[in-house]
Amino acid sequence: MNASEYLLDRLADYKVDHIFGIPGDYILPFFAHAEASGIRMVTTTHEPSAGYAADAYARTKGLGAAVATYGVGALNMLNATAQAYAERSPTLFISGAPEISGRSPDKLLHHEVKHWDTQIRAFSEMTCAAVNLVDGAKACEQIDTVIDDVMRLKRPGYIELPRDMQKTEVERRRVVRTYLKRGDDFEKNLADATSKVIGILNGSKRPVIYAGVEIDRFGLRSELIRFAKKANLPVATSLLGKSVFPETHPNFVGIYMGAIGSQRAREMVENSDCVLLLGGFMTDFDSGLFTMRIPDDNLILADASQLLVRGESFPGITLPDLMRSLLLSPGINPREPPARQPADSKAAQPQQGSGLSAGSIIEALNGFVGDEMAVVTDVGDCLFSCVDLKVNRFLAPAFYASVGFGVPAGLGMGLADLTRRTVVLVGDGGFQMTGVELSTAKRLGINPIVIVYNDAKYGTLEAMRAGMKSFDLPVWDYSGLAKAIGCDGCAASTPQELKGALQSALSSRVPYVIDAKLSGARSNTLQRLGGLVGKKTA
Amino acid sequence: MNASEYLLDRLADYKVDHIFGIPGDYILPFFAHAEASGIRMVTTTHEPSAGYAADAYARTKGLGAAVATYGVGALNMLNATAQAYAERSPTLFISGAPEISGRSPDKLLHHEVKHWDTQIRAFSEMTCAAVNLVDGAKACEQIDTVIDDVMRLKRPGYIELPRDMQKTEVERRRVVRTYLKRGDDFEKNLADATSKVIGILNGSKRPVIYAGVEIDRFGLRSELIRFAKKANLPVATSLLGKSVFPETHPNFVGIYMGAIGSQRAREMVENSDCVLLLGGFMTDFDSGLFTMRIPDDNLILADASQLLVRGESFPGITLPDLMRSLLLSPGINPREPPARQPADSKAAQPQQGSGLSAGSIIEALNGFVGDEMAVVTDVGDCLFSCVDLKVNRFLAPAFYASVGFGVPAGLGMGLADLTRRTVVLVGDGGFQMTGVELSTAKRLGINPIVIVYNDAKYGTLEAMRAGMKSFDLPVWDYSGLAKAIGCDGCAASTPQELKGALQSALSSRVPYVIDAKLSGARSNTLQRLGGLVGKKTA
Repeated sequence: MNASEYLLDRLADYKVDHIFGIPGDYILPFFAHAEASGIRMVTTTHEPSAGYAADAYARTKGLGAAVATYGVGALNMLNATAQAYAERSPTLFISGAPEISGRSPDKLLHHEVKHWDTQIRAFSEMTCAAVNLVDGAKACEQIDTVIDDVMRLKRPGYIELPRDMQKTEVERRRVVRTYLKRGDDFEKNLADATSKVIGILNGSKRPVIYAGVEIDRFGLRSELIRFAKKANLPVATSLLGKSVFPETHPNFVGIYMGAIGSQRAREMVENSDCVLLLGGFMTDFDSGLFTMRIPDDNLILADASQLLVRGESFPGITLPDLMRSLLLSPGINPREPPARQPADSKAAQPQQGSGLSAGSIIEALNGFVGDEMAVVTDVGDCLFSCVDLKVNRFLAPAFYASVGFGVPAGLGMGLADLTRRTVVLVGDGGFQMTGVELSTAKRLGINPIVIVYNDAKYGTLEAMRAGMKSFDLPVWDYSGLAKAIGCDGCAASTPQELKGALQSALSSRVPYVIDAKLSGARSNTLQRLGGLVGKKTA
Repeated sequence: MNASEYLLDRLADYKVDHIFGIPGDYILPFFAHAEASGIRMVTTTHEPSAGYAADAYARTKGLGAAVATYGVGALNMLNATAQAYAERSPTLFISGAPEISGRSPDKLLHHEVKHWDTQIRAFSEMTCAAVNLVDGAKACEQIDTVIDDVMRLKRPGYIELPRDMQKTEVERRRVVRTYLKRGDDFEKNLADATSKVIGILNGSKRPVIYAGVEIDRFGLRSELIRFAKKANLPVATSLLGKSVFPETHPNFVGIYMGAIGSQRAREMVENSDCVLLLGGFMTDFDSGLFTMRIPDDNLILADASQLLVRGESFPGITLPDLMRSLLLSPGINPREPPARQPADSKAAQPQQGSGLSAGSIIEALNGFVGDEMAVVTDVGDCLFSCVDLKVNRFLAPAFYASVGFGVPAGLGMGLADLTRRTVVLVGDGGFQMTGVELSTAKRLGINPIVIVYNDAKYGTLEAMRAGMKSFDLPVWDYSGLAKAIGCDGCAASTPQELKGALQSALSSRVPYVIDAKLSGARSNTLQRLGGLVGKKTA
């Protein structure tokens, strides 16, 4: 067994069935071994797309992988790596490199930048673990270490495989690792924490769960649903964590983002005397640009690294521990069901004329997207308008916010979960970056539905600062482009046309692009956000 | 005057009329100042393209600039930065960043990765100078230092401009810099070196100039022409340096790449007893994968950092010094004109059937491309086949070799030199990465002609290792895509159709894509290269 085969084996252990990337001469032996393995190599149109697709695959399936050649390929994925780091996505980035044996200071090899460690130093900045495999005797252990760190920390890792090493026999020495090291006090701390949390819960008048994206990263979705049912608590989520709790569930109350998100969720959270913040982290978007108001005295916070109960720390106890303990513990008094209120999506939307707006797209989708679908968005109003979308499987780069993520992420998400059809919401700016990746989706036999929010500009920037020429985007015929790359599509300018377009999309066996020509207002969330950011950019 | 205005002023000093980039909220004040300046902001479709376009602009005009927002934007240009470093292109990369004043460890700001210096640390790996402007009192001097390093070293630089700093008044304190520090022995060393070089030249039987890309970087093109005329020497160039000497000049003998390039140039260089290697550097491609054979005893080497005459070093003397001194010195005996030989392009091409091949595209271009045009290529046989193309203005990433460079580089080159129409040669893989950038060329009113070498695969990789599935590319209708983004085009499957297509392109006022459907052999150069690399990838 050589290093390539060992690495492929380890990926298969984690059910990685697809690896995204672009071949190049320094990584060819790895590609050859991969093609001979059961894993499908997905050649994307451009390396940034491979990175985004692998990230979305990881968010959906628990681990994803992207591979490219040295320099030109890998460095082109670095921004996707950064996004996976910022948003805690367990993604492995693999790069080829020139043979260790062929390196000499006076011979410049193609794809070489400055020094041989230039690339790994850049990747070390964007990953939780990075290694250059140069020794067959250590390779297996090093591969294991990187993958274990990725799985434990839910952050990206980097493995550099010089071309000779890709063919080198390795000593298979799988170390049995115990990456969760429990302290001696763990059981006692957990019991204390659990009883304290239950006491506070039972003694509070208006408790609420506010759930973030780590629920998904640690595979705690069903635990959250069971706990919410057990205690019968209302559940709000963050935007980055949207859909970690099913939005069609009667206990769901909306996306809390301080002053800019769902107003109903804001009332529930900010009037609560006990907020269980489970797996969220304090980003500017999720906190409504820090307009979030939750007093520490009302807060129970559990995440990947800590548990804080009204300011008291319980060392060694983290989110998964608390969730599982709460589920097993007796003594939680269930609440009255939360009052059924009309969703605020309708009320929140401005009045529509005959044209299309971000709000009318969401209205159409609320009657269209069912449990057999999953929604992924790019950045911009295609994302912010989704505060008002009801959906049970959702994915978006709602913190790092790399425009161009949407369509490649639709590819990754679609391949990671073949049971659901993917709906991609993307701005025209984002589609111009990476929209052609649909061509790869077609090759792989999946058929995402893509709605392009077409306002011929970077509308989110315009919401912050009106009238700059640099925001104008060229006018494209998006459905024509779809046809030129083997897909299908049509345009829609009114809510009625959009409904028809969605029906055409539904019956399409290839990826389908709906060119949604916007003439109406931006979503309420974006309008509020734009106002707050605008002050800083003036 | 604030920091943005000072930086824009300095760029204008170097005749930078266009800056390539994509706006984002952390860089908006800079964009606003730029729009108010005389410099045209060119919003590209994707950040990698902005980096490539700025690099090509720099190679053509002497300095180029690209700008993006923090994280998502700037890190997406890092691969283009790496290419500018490797191929010595004086390009300035500018990034916005969150306000210095608003940073706090417990508040995560969008586009943030790990630490506040994560990004500049990555850029430091790919640049010759990198600075984060945090102090208005020092900003001007720091900007000057980065630009001076870029101009002196012909490598990329990086400037990070936090959003508050973009609006901060700066102390204008332009330092008069003497970045060429001459030692006391400079004049004597130069005189000694010059007389030694002239002595060797006059005493040799078959002297030849072998010129590399630094001739262009240091603006020595006309000096080279004048020197070649004065001594009447034959001139070969490297592939990276292609066209630093006019290829229609009677003294031009071809592209020397050891065993894989022009066979006539190989004979001239390897049989020479005095090779003047001017501004080249030893890359694997340029040296024909190190099959180049020039004995040190026959070599006079001058480049950006050194002069070596038959192994003897002349400290402090570099390429520009030697070139200018040789032009001014008497005593060089002119040679007989080099024997006029038929170019080996025809002989070197395999017999063509009725289909198109890389060779037949070059044949058609040799009758089409005149001095009013410039050619830029992507990576692959679109580049390697150009060993046989006769052209006086040419640009290609022939060392770092980032696929996807071609079309955006055509934008940058076209805007940097509005007197010439750009012809872009690009593989289908490269076009799929960044071909939509043509839409930006149309907006800017330029009309490059793009020939897509369409073999539905990564053909260069296939030349190294046949039969891997991952090399297959999806089939696109490239001219249909061109029309969907506001450009024009057609397909061509035979040499006759290609001639017609070139005529249609000539009269097109918008960018024009020729979908060249290949059915014939790869170029001789690629066949030789593929054979050599193939052994390593097996």
